[in-house]
Amino acid sequence: MTPDEPDTPYLFVDAAVTERNLETMAATARELGIALRPHAKTHKCPPLGLRQVELGAVGLTLATVAEAEIFADGGCRDIFLAYPVWAGGRRGRRLTALAERVRLRLGVDSAESAAVLAAAVPGAEVLVEVDSGHHRSGVPPREAGAVALAASRHGLRVIGAFTFPGHGYGPGNRSRAAVDEADTLAEADRVLREAGFEVEVRSGGSTPTAALSARGTVTEIRPGSYVFNDAQQLETGSCDWSDIGLYAVSTVVSRRGRQVILDSGNKILGADRPQWATGHGRLLHHPDARVTALSEHHATVVFPPDEPPPELGSRVSVVPNHVCTAVNLVDELLVGTAGTIQDRWPVRARGANA
Amino acid sequence: MTPDEPDTPYLFVDAAVTERNLETMAATARELGIALRPHAKTHKCPPLGLRQVELGAVGLTLATVAEAEIFADGGCRDIFLAYPVWAGGRRGRRLTALAERVRLRLGVDSAESAAVLAAAVPGAEVLVEVDSGHHRSGVPPREAGAVALAASRHGLRVIGAFTFPGHGYGPGNRSRAAVDEADTLAEADRVLREAGFEVEVRSGGSTPTAALSARGTVTEIRPGSYVFNDAQQLETGSCDWSDIGLYAVSTVVSRRGRQVILDSGNKILGADRPQWATGHGRLLHHPDARVTALSEHHATVVFPPDEPPPELGSRVSVVPNHVCTAVNLVDELLVGTAGTIQDRWPVRARGANA
Repeated sequence: MTPDEPDTPYLFVDAAVTERNLETMAATARELGIALRPHAKTHKCPPLGLRQVELGAVGLTLATVAEAEIFADGGCRDIFLAYPVWAGGRRGRRLTALAERVRLRLGVDSAESAAVLAAAVPGAEVLVEVDSGHHRSGVPPREAGAVALAASRHGLRVIGAFTFPGHGYGPGNRSRAAVDEADTLAEADRVLREAGFEVEVRSGGSTPTAALSARGTVTEIRPGSYVFNDAQQLETGSCDWSDIGLYAVSTVVSRRGRQVILDSGNKILGADRPQWATGHGRLLHHPDARVTALSEHHATVVFPPDEPPPELGSRVSVVPNHVCTAVNLVDELLVGTAGTIQDRWPVRARGANA
Repeated sequence: MTPDEPDTPYLFVDAAVTERNLETMAATARELGIALRPHAKTHKCPPLGLRQVELGAVGLTLATVAEAEIFADGGCRDIFLAYPVWAGGRRGRRLTALAERVRLRLGVDSAESAAVLAAAVPGAEVLVEVDSGHHRSGVPPREAGAVALAASRHGLRVIGAFTFPGHGYGPGNRSRAAVDEADTLAEADRVLREAGFEVEVRSGGSTPTAALSARGTVTEIRPGSYVFNDAQQLETGSCDWSDIGLYAVSTVVSRRGRQVILDSGNKILGADRPQWATGHGRLLHHPDARVTALSEHHATVVFPPDEPPPELGSRVSVVPNHVCTAVNLVDELLVGTAGTIQDRWPVRARGANA
């Protein structure tokens, strides 16, 4: 540590790994012959979104109107809000304005939300959200036709269906989720065609399932986390240690036996902790250490018997479980290569929830 | 909903409930004859900290140097960093500057960290952190004397011991944790006195254990969450529904059978989810509904068979599991009474991790 290094904890982005991750996913989509529309909620940085488009993405995916406004301000021109947006009140007026400056597509999963959306953005392009097993928003594919007909009656232009195979997270779940995704989009396609719609877009794909996407069935993928990856992707088997592009630089502040306390708590790592995860994140250079607990400013890390824990005051790099929520905790990312800081990226769409 | 209400999700503070919570805790401490030093990491708003002092708090507790700098800028003059601060590098120089403008106390739990701290803030007042059962930082009380002697050799002024009875969270744990806290502080007191120290401060207390603090043994309490309370406090039994001072105003965006999806995900509620909790937060006016899953922009809520779920587009108030991390996600809190917005409080110490 030099005297002028930033105080910990902070999030560091390895620019070389990140660029390689961007290029690899772009190549994967190209080889599959599937359009890439990355979910930019992971990085929340418009310049990174522009780089994704430069590498061949057809546009970006976002979740909220506020994120879309910020990315539009940053120069992005083609945005899919992969969310059952409720376009009432002020949000409707913001959507009207947004649709005037970007090519905008939206998700819809009910006749009611289609009616409200049509009032805000007449003739908007929409995709019906279908549920492929994650059981969140979205209708079963057999009901996609009813939603599409309602949307169409209100004057919206139905161009296809989308799903999020979120149940692909977790070790051993990727292939099954990719099959579910393909089956669901194929059924939605059939149902929509039977209801008289031309289906231009069948959109799926998360980072774990992206490379397994069914050619011919899936026309577009929306992975997000691949930009930086994280401990979830590592433990799900969709990336390797060398693909980790972001980590929290932390200091050992307390030490007792095989246990150390780091100053990177859930206010920098996020509190996401799926039941199948080995812990609350992973240590970049200590794969056998386990992050057994997190509080706001403490990470409890237990080292294996054959590995001496790091010294008090030394620095350790922690890979968060879920990179999207970790990035959402900071106003800027420190960026460089091999741990040397060369740049700072403002997280412009941090906290852009509405 | 009026057309100009803010778009959801947003965090709303009920000013009347909050003021009552502040007054109640001040009264509790007064009645116990124990000094109140609230942990201001919950609200992160310096004016609220000043109000706590106005109501009788002896000073504030914070966890990071960055938080302390922001509260010092906001006019707070007496701060305890209840954390084993590692005072190396830049952080040491920042502590030197901070100690010149506020009365500063710090935590210490090792000879090494005491040495580094003494170089940055010679003669600083410190409290030895002892572990009362939460097993995070802190030494067992029998070792408090060794840490204190090391700190003293480096010229620090040891004024007592502190602990965080974090294992008091969870239904049925409060009384046991309060007893552990008292036993631990009593033992630390004995050990420190035997080592030749005068013990001015025995500091404990979390929101769940504050009202159960042992008179005579505990001289100071540091509750934080009581300002707003949250679903954890509710389910731990340390507050009632009428004490909930903060919630996320959310919109129903999807609905199917007994399940609705709200637009308040873990980017506004936080992802804290203790195993004993009934879910990922509670609904303010629907105590029997369960928040069964959270993703970034989706809360999945299941209603009981005898209660019709709210309509699409309607607004619902969600109490986060852990208010400290929820507040840390927003740049401002919308404040008012009975749901009407009258003010906005900037969350000045949001993300002040370093």
